[in-house]
Amino acid sequence: MKIALAQINYHIGNFENNVSKIISAIQRAKAGRVNLIVFAELAVSGYPPRDFLEFDDFINQCLNAVDDIAKHCTGISAIVGSPVKNPEFQGKDLYNAAFLLEDGKVKEIRHKTLLPNYDIFDEYRYFEPNKVFEIIETGGKKIALTICEDLWNVGNNPLYTINPMDELMDQEPEMIINIAASPFNYNQHITRAEILIENARKYKIPLYYVNHVGAQTELLFDGGSMVIDNKGQILHELNYFEEDYLEVDTENLSNSKSERQIKKYPEGKAKTGLIYDALVMGVRNYFEKLGFTKAILGLSGGIDSALTLAIAVKALGVRNVLSVLMPSQFSSQHSVDDSLEMVKRIDAPYKIIAINEIYNGFNQKLHPHFEDLPFDLAEENVQARIRGVLLMALSNKFGYILLNTSNKSEAAVGYGTLYGDMNGGLSVLGDVYKTEVFELARYINREREIIPENIITKPPSAELRPDQKDSDSLPDYAILDEILYQYIEQRQGPRELVKMGFDEAIVKRILRMVNINEYKRYQTPPILRVSPKAFGMGRRMPIVAKYLA
Amino acid sequence: MKIALAQINYHIGNFENNVSKIISAIQRAKAGRVNLIVFAELAVSGYPPRDFLEFDDFINQCLNAVDDIAKHCTGISAIVGSPVKNPEFQGKDLYNAAFLLEDGKVKEIRHKTLLPNYDIFDEYRYFEPNKVFEIIETGGKKIALTICEDLWNVGNNPLYTINPMDELMDQEPEMIINIAASPFNYNQHITRAEILIENARKYKIPLYYVNHVGAQTELLFDGGSMVIDNKGQILHELNYFEEDYLEVDTENLSNSKSERQIKKYPEGKAKTGLIYDALVMGVRNYFEKLGFTKAILGLSGGIDSALTLAIAVKALGVRNVLSVLMPSQFSSQHSVDDSLEMVKRIDAPYKIIAINEIYNGFNQKLHPHFEDLPFDLAEENVQARIRGVLLMALSNKFGYILLNTSNKSEAAVGYGTLYGDMNGGLSVLGDVYKTEVFELARYINREREIIPENIITKPPSAELRPDQKDSDSLPDYAILDEILYQYIEQRQGPRELVKMGFDEAIVKRILRMVNINEYKRYQTPPILRVSPKAFGMGRRMPIVAKYLA
Repeated sequence: MKIALAQINYHIGNFENNVSKIISAIQRAKAGRVNLIVFAELAVSGYPPRDFLEFDDFINQCLNAVDDIAKHCTGISAIVGSPVKNPEFQGKDLYNAAFLLEDGKVKEIRHKTLLPNYDIFDEYRYFEPNKVFEIIETGGKKIALTICEDLWNVGNNPLYTINPMDELMDQEPEMIINIAASPFNYNQHITRAEILIENARKYKIPLYYVNHVGAQTELLFDGGSMVIDNKGQILHELNYFEEDYLEVDTENLSNSKSERQIKKYPEGKAKTGLIYDALVMGVRNYFEKLGFTKAILGLSGGIDSALTLAIAVKALGVRNVLSVLMPSQFSSQHSVDDSLEMVKRIDAPYKIIAINEIYNGFNQKLHPHFEDLPFDLAEENVQARIRGVLLMALSNKFGYILLNTSNKSEAAVGYGTLYGDMNGGLSVLGDVYKTEVFELARYINREREIIPENIITKPPSAELRPDQKDSDSLPDYAILDEILYQYIEQRQGPRELVKMGFDEAIVKRILRMVNINEYKRYQTPPILRVSPKAFGMGRRMPIVAKYLA
Repeated sequence: MKIALAQINYHIGNFENNVSKIISAIQRAKAGRVNLIVFAELAVSGYPPRDFLEFDDFINQCLNAVDDIAKHCTGISAIVGSPVKNPEFQGKDLYNAAFLLEDGKVKEIRHKTLLPNYDIFDEYRYFEPNKVFEIIETGGKKIALTICEDLWNVGNNPLYTINPMDELMDQEPEMIINIAASPFNYNQHITRAEILIENARKYKIPLYYVNHVGAQTELLFDGGSMVIDNKGQILHELNYFEEDYLEVDTENLSNSKSERQIKKYPEGKAKTGLIYDALVMGVRNYFEKLGFTKAILGLSGGIDSALTLAIAVKALGVRNVLSVLMPSQFSSQHSVDDSLEMVKRIDAPYKIIAINEIYNGFNQKLHPHFEDLPFDLAEENVQARIRGVLLMALSNKFGYILLNTSNKSEAAVGYGTLYGDMNGGLSVLGDVYKTEVFELARYINREREIIPENIITKPPSAELRPDQKDSDSLPDYAILDEILYQYIEQRQGPRELVKMGFDEAIVKRILRMVNINEYKRYQTPPILRVSPKAFGMGRRMPIVAKYLA
C-alpha cells in the first residue's frame, strides 16, 4: 500500500482555504497512485478552533467540508480530522474525530480518547472522550487510527488511566496512523520523537504520523511528520517549519531509508536555531493569515528591538518593516547611532521622531497636579507611552501592525510600561529570556554582523531617566533568568529554589515581582510560544491573589 | 444535629486570611453548640486558584491549612474544601476534595466527580475525577457529601455520563451536603435554586448548600447558601453579596421557616439590581484584596463613565474616586458641564486637564510623516491615547487604580481605542451592554438624580471628531445589543440570526466586527462578569482566524 503524508499549514475557520489545500494534496496523491493519504487532526477547521466549536454553524461548516473532501476520494482513501457531533444524550456535544473517506463518502469515524487539557490545551472543554475501541480497515490493511494525545500516555507520570493502543492491539492492527496537532517548543521535536518511537517499539508495528505546520497566532506548529518502522527507527521525517508532502510504500518500508536530509542545526546551537526558525514562521504567518504585509516597531538602540527587527525583516522582507527611532532627553547618543547603523546596514526604512517636546508638553500639563513630588516611575512611563502613541498613530494611518519587542524576563518581572513599550499586535520575544535574546542575536550574526556589535555588548538600559541601567532594578540576567526558568517552566517553589542554592532574599523578591505583575501580563499581546511554558493561554494565574506576593 | 453554614469571602492564596476566617467561624459555631460546620469548595485556597495548583508548594500550603483548621475541630466537626494529592500512579496529580475534620484531625476525604470545564471553569486542567462513591457518617448521620458540579448533571443536555447522587443513594444517606463555588451571573441564582431543588426532590432528603461570596478579580460570587427540605422547599437562604452565617437544627427543619428576609429586588428590576450589587462588590473586593483604596477614571460626559463613577463611589467611598475631565477641541461644552454637574452633585474630587495642546504637539510631530492623508481614525485614537497617558501618569504618581469605563457593546464591536479608553486595571462595565447601561443608570437614579438626566438622554458620542455620533458607525443599540446577545450569550450563528428576523447585511456586519476585534479584547483588563458569557477567561476565541470575518 502506498501512503501519503500531507503536512499542511491550515488557517483556523478558513474552510475554503483548508479544503482547497486538502483537495490539491488528494489530486497530487492520485497522480502518484497513492492508496491512502493522511491529513492532520482537526485539519478542516485548523487547530485550535477554540470556542468556535460551540457554534452549531461552525460544526456544520466542518462537516460540510468533510463531505466536500469525501467527494474527491474516489480511487483513493483519505484520513482527515474534524469535530463531529456526539449523537448520545449524555456527555459533551462533540467528539474530536478522524474520518476515513472512501468511495466518495465517509466510511468510518474514530474518536479521540485522551483529551489534553493542560498548558495551552483545552480539549476537554469541548469534546467527550472516546470509550469504544475499534481498528479501521482499508486497502486490506488493519490500522490502529489514533489522534495525537492517544499515543502520549507514557512515561513516569501518566496523566490518564487508559491507553488506547493497549485496547486496540487485540484486533491485531498492522500499523498505527496518528493524526496530530502537536505545537512547537524548543524541546518538543525530541520529546515527540521519543514518544512516537516508544509506541512503535512497544507495539512492534510501524507508525505514520502527520502533524500540523504553521502558526496560529501564538501557537507554532513545526511539522516534522514522520514514518517510524516497527523497530522504532525513524525512516522518514518531513521538513520542519514548512509545508511538506511524502509518499511511502508500506511494503518497502524497512528497505527505504529516506533520501531527504533531515534539517539539522549546528551542534550546540540546536535550540537557538529552532527558536529563530519558529519566530520567523510565527511573524510571517501572523501577517499572512490576517492579510497584512507591513510591520512597524520602535527601535530603541537596545538588543530586544534590534533582534525583533532582524526577525521581522527575515519574515516579511526588509521593505515591509518600518523602524521608528524616538529619542528623548534621556536617550544616549549611541542609542540613536547604533539604531541608525543597523537600519542602514540592512537598508531598512526608518523614521526619527524626537519626543522631547511632546514629553515637555505632558509635563507642563501634569506638573500642577503632581504636587511637587519627585521624578519617578510616572514620568518614566510617560515617555514610553508617548512612543506607544506615536507608533500606534503611524500604525493606524498606514495599516502597519505594531510588533512588541519585550522579552520574557521583562514580562516576568513587570519591567515594562503597560500601554507603552508593552504595546503591539504580536509579541515576538515574549517567550525568550534575555539571556536567550543574546544567543539569538549571536546566531543571527553568525555569518555577518546584522545587529551591530555595540548593541549586543553594551549594558541593557531602558533610558527613561539619566544613566539608568537594567541592573539598577533587576538582578543580573544570568541569575534572574535561571530563577525565572525554575519558577515558570519547572514550577519550583521558593523552598525548592533555595535548596538549589539561590539566595533566599533574591528568590523571594523575584517570585513576588512575577506574581504581582500578573495584571500587566493579562493585557499584553499574544506571545509567540517557543518554550514549554509561555505567558498567555498556557499559563493561567489569578490576578487578585496573595501567594508569594 | 445542629449544622452551621459559613458563607465566607476568601482571598486566593491568602492562607493566613482564609484559615483565620474559618477558625473564627468554628469558634462561633462551638459557642452555639453546633455539631457540624460547613465551609465552601476549595475554601482554604480560595476559588479559582488556577495554575497555582501546579505548584507543590501551593498544595502543601493548602494541606497545612487543613491541618491547622483540624486542630480546632474538637467537640465539633467541620467540612472544608481543599485540593489533595492523588496517591495513584495514573491520572492527574490532584483531586478537588471535601475534608471531614473531627477530633482534631482529618477523618474522611471525598473527591469531586463532575469537573466543570466550560465557560470560566478549567477544573479538568488540574483534577482527576472521582470514581469511588461512599457516604460519610458524622454525629450519627449518614451524609451524601458532594462538591458543587456533582449535583448539576440534570436537565435536557447532561454534560456527564455519570450522576454521583445516583451512586450514593444505595447507601441511604439522610441528607445531602454540597460545598460549592458557584459564581454569579444575573440568571445564576434562579438556575442554582432550581437545580438544588430538583436534587432535594429527586432524592427526597434535605440539602445543605454552602457557596462562596466575594469577588476574585472578574469572578463574582454572590453567596446565597441555602437549606432545602426533602420536598424541595427553600427553608433558609443566606444573604447575597455579603458574608453570612446560619445555624439550623436538622431535627426541627421542616417546622423552622427562616425568620430572615430573603433579599428581594423590585419587581421587573431584579436583573438590574442584581447586576448593580454584583458590580459594587466586584469593584470593592478588587481594591480591598489588592490593598488599594483609590480609583481614578476619565469622566467624558457620556453615560458609561458617569455610571462607572457612580458604582465606584458606592464601592470605595466618594473621597476615593478621582474623576478627570480631559476635553479636547472636539468636546462639546455640555460634556464638560454634565460631568461637572455630576461630580459637584455628589461632591466628588475631580481635575480638569485640557488635551488640546498635547494633541497639537502630537499632530506637529506626526504631520510630516502622515503624507497629507486626511484626518481619520489615527487622529481620533491619538486623543483617546493622550487621555490614557494622563490617567496612567496620575495613577502611577499617586497609586490610583484606573477604572476602565468601556461597555460590552463597544468591546464586542471594537468601538474603542486600544491603549486609550480601553485602558484600566479593571473593567467595570465590560459585561454590560449599552442598553443595560441605561437601565443601570435609571436604577441608580431611582430615588434621586445622581447621574444628570442630560447624560442619560443625549445621543452617545465618542467626541473624537466634529459632530461625531455612535450612530454614525454602529447600528441602533437596541438592535446591536440584541444581535450581540444572540451571538455571544446564545451562540447563534448567522443563519439562525437571519431566521430570527434580523437583517442579513447587519448580522453579517456585526458578526464580522465582533470576530475581527478579538485582538483588541485580548489586551483589555479583566471584566467583572455579570452575564452567562462575558469576554475574558470564559470566552476563548482564536485571534488569527477567518470565520464570519
